[in-house]
Amino acid sequence: MRQDHTTLNIHTNRQGLFELTKQIKAWVLGTGINTGMLTVFCRHTSASLMIQENADPDVQYDIETFFKQLVREDPSLYTHTNEGPDDMPGHIRSVLTDVSLSIPVIGGAPVLGTWQGVFLYEHRARNHDRQVVLHLMGD
Amino acid sequence: MRQDHTTLNIHTNRQGLFELTKQIKAWVLGTGINTGMLTVFCRHTSASLMIQENADPDVQYDIETFFKQLVREDPSLYTHTNEGPDDMPGHIRSVLTDVSLSIPVIGGAPVLGTWQGVFLYEHRARNHDRQVVLHLMGD
Amino acid sequence: MRQDHTTLNIHTNRQGLFELTKQIKAWVLGTGINTGMLTVFCRHTSASLMIQENADPDVQYDIETFFKQLVREDPSLYTHTNEGPDDMPGHIRSVLTDVSLSIPVIGGAPVLGTWQGVFLYEHRARNHDRQVVLHLMGD
Repeated sequence: MRQDHTTLNIHTNRQGLFELTKQIKAWVLGTGINTGMLTVFCRHTSASLMIQENADPDVQYDIETFFKQLVREDPSLYTHTNEGPDDMPGHIRSVLTDVSLSIPVIGGAPVLGTWQGVFLYEHRARNHDRQVVLHLMGD
Repeated sequence: MRQDHTTLNIHTNRQGLFELTKQIKAWVLGTGINTGMLTVFCRHTSASLMIQENADPDVQYDIETFFKQLVREDPSLYTHTNEGPDDMPGHIRSVLTDVSLSIPVIGGAPVLGTWQGVFLYEHRARNHDRQVVLHLMGD
Repeated sequence: MRQDHTTLNIHTNRQGLFELTKQIKAWVLGTGINTGMLTVFCRHTSASLMIQENADPDVQYDIETFFKQLVREDPSLYTHTNEGPDDMPGHIRSVLTDVSLSIPVIGGAPVLGTWQGVFLYEHRARNHDRQVVLHLMGD
């Protein structure tokens, strides 16, 4: 049993979903670990993680639309407004989605289903540099 | 330290919660691993996981009612509508609940609290065959 | 590779967020495990976990306000009402947040970002004693 870890650095330039599936699969393969447990961890409070369908971009559009309506970018709703109108909604949208994901690895690959992709969900409109830590433990 | 894994195959024939607690506990016991880390992973994007009270069925009814009202099955709200009126709401309800769960194992059993059960949350009305991967690493 | 675990006992006397970051970091350091995978697991169905900004208390206030409005404490909305007006909303708020968190550990510390704190989110108004299990596996 051994372990390995890395940090993905992702530059974001808009709100929305950025797919990480290929990068994650490539890193897992490169570790040489065949069977184990993969953790994906987002080190931010206004960006988060999500596993969702990566086939039809309409699904991603509808998910983003849902969150825009559920968590409004209206400063009159919040007390924490000094970091911009997209900051506090970003914290709440992060809470409603995921900060960490655990994915078993079998046969050298995460056991994602046919339609599952791993996404970074950026909640801020301006440019940001995001860090996602990958950790894998296994044989 | 060693590891084991399996896949639960669950046939669903309605929207709602399907409890997996007994199957999960039985598999953990059968591995012979006394102390470790259990991961439960759902390989779908319109079914998800949830840990909630398994004593009073009214709790499960109220949770489902809440999600039906929060995420409406109204095709006029979505662009991704070609897979049926329950598909896009299913993706969103999956995002709001869990795709993976990590549960410590002590004394040969997951450390679930007295009232906690593990459920598969099926979001589609038609028959589906769902795969939930269990992975356990420990001693 | 080895593992360790403990249970944090947290007394709560109000609804809201109780930060656990210091206790978690101190325990991780004390295990002597430098690199590994930390799991934080909440053994309850009306209290949950959350990673969020711990710098500006306004963020926590706004998050709690959002959940109070999204999941109303109005018994006419629920069938499970016999445990008090804050119980069923507590179950739903638990489902919308987290029951388990997986955090990689590097250099003897969880890889939390600069602004990330780990919180217990208590959903009940009366006094409660809560158990949060920590499990760490690594070298």
